[in-house]
Amino acid sequence: MKKILIIGIGAGDPDYLTVQAINALNQADVFFVMDKGVAKEKLIALRKQIIERFVDGERYRIVEASSPERRPDDGDYRSAVDELNRDKQRIFERLIAEELNDGEVGAFLVWGDPSLYDSTIRIVEAIAESIAEGGGEALDYEVIPGISSVQALAARHKVPLNLIGRSITITNGRSIAEGFPDNVDSVVVMLDSQNAYRHLANDDLDIYWGAYVGTPDEILIAGKLRDVIDEIERVRAEARRTHGWIMDTYLLRKRERA
Amino acid sequence: MKKILIIGIGAGDPDYLTVQAINALNQADVFFVMDKGVAKEKLIALRKQIIERFVDGERYRIVEASSPERRPDDGDYRSAVDELNRDKQRIFERLIAEELNDGEVGAFLVWGDPSLYDSTIRIVEAIAESIAEGGGEALDYEVIPGISSVQALAARHKVPLNLIGRSITITNGRSIAEGFPDNVDSVVVMLDSQNAYRHLANDDLDIYWGAYVGTPDEILIAGKLRDVIDEIERVRAEARRTHGWIMDTYLLRKRERA
Repeated sequence: MKKILIIGIGAGDPDYLTVQAINALNQADVFFVMDKGVAKEKLIALRKQIIERFVDGERYRIVEASSPERRPDDGDYRSAVDELNRDKQRIFERLIAEELNDGEVGAFLVWGDPSLYDSTIRIVEAIAESIAEGGGEALDYEVIPGISSVQALAARHKVPLNLIGRSITITNGRSIAEGFPDNVDSVVVMLDSQNAYRHLANDDLDIYWGAYVGTPDEILIAGKLRDVIDEIERVRAEARRTHGWIMDTYLLRKRERA
Repeated sequence: MKKILIIGIGAGDPDYLTVQAINALNQADVFFVMDKGVAKEKLIALRKQIIERFVDGERYRIVEASSPERRPDDGDYRSAVDELNRDKQRIFERLIAEELNDGEVGAFLVWGDPSLYDSTIRIVEAIAESIAEGGGEALDYEVIPGISSVQALAARHKVPLNLIGRSITITNGRSIAEGFPDNVDSVVVMLDSQNAYRHLANDDLDIYWGAYVGTPDEILIAGKLRDVIDEIERVRAEARRTHGWIMDTYLLRKRERA
């Protein structure tokens, strides 16, 4: 029997690790470390720092694998992601088959929270099902929640995510570009590589924007969207040039009627 | 100068505390412990356990205050909540004025995450503003995020909150009773005291329900809403009778078209 731990390590600050995550790290025999793109080296280094800081002793192994990249999607985002996840599943399958021995515990460290815009749970579940269907020995897995970038953003801006008694929607740049959703006044946008907030410049919104939240490079900007929109776009482009990558999130809120 | 720390202590399991929260607990001179209703004693005891377990030494003070209860709202939920928050603000103001000395750090421990359906940030901000307007010495405050019941629920059910590339809405029982929101396929419902999912029994939905998630009393039920709806209602009523209170959350998801 093999076991997989899908461990949320929080969004940026190693101090976001929970006691539960630290205990989970200490159960792992093998850490599977996968990242991609320009941020790869920095993110892998950060994971290794977390392992070194929080794991007692050195009986663990680290296995690095290169994460496949999503192909340009020519408009069909969903099938590009499906293909990416099939590629990832093949890699995860190989890692679990070849790099993890029977009776051992393998760990995937996930930025933020594994339940939010991350494919690891979905992929490990698919592998466990395919092993079970093939009559192999069951693959056990557990999920350990972590502080998401959404929560880190709200905490650093010291704002609640919701207005009193009202809902919140968490969405992505692709969706918010189509317009502010109906019947909601608070929207958190993740994964926006295109400055999608530009499409909402005429709405009466406040924005709470943050990049690299919880890290020493953190940048926070808040204000009336229309007043700070150019500043955000400029700072964002500048930060992306300086660091080679950007990880940012923002909360958009309709202004409350008095 | 006085400082307030609004510390998210996670939803249930003390192991959900982050390193950052533990460090914050250790900076506090005074813990303000407030709870209300039937769960009060149990919740206060849990907070004290957290303080005892994670704080080194005993130089801190614990100040208990009884939290005001929301009046029955005769249909005007918002004004009932506003009134409740004004009452709370008066109590917080008194606590900060009388129980916290200059140069000291006071802490409010918030279940789950302070940015999600909790009024502490809003109240402390209002007090800080009112002190600043009155020309008093500034009240400094910080927010420390915690694992919310939403994340704990997803982790324990081992499900992602969102479908690939799609949005999530977090809402309350009051709102979901009006129907499943448009253009969303994943909805998390908090604060539902009325079995509001009953209103959606005819929709083609999966439900992932959990009560007391992350505690030894945890109960998890998942399945097609229509198949498990009676079981959830029965288990919920039973749990409420046994414990005298219930804290539950659920994820509703439209079934993905093949």
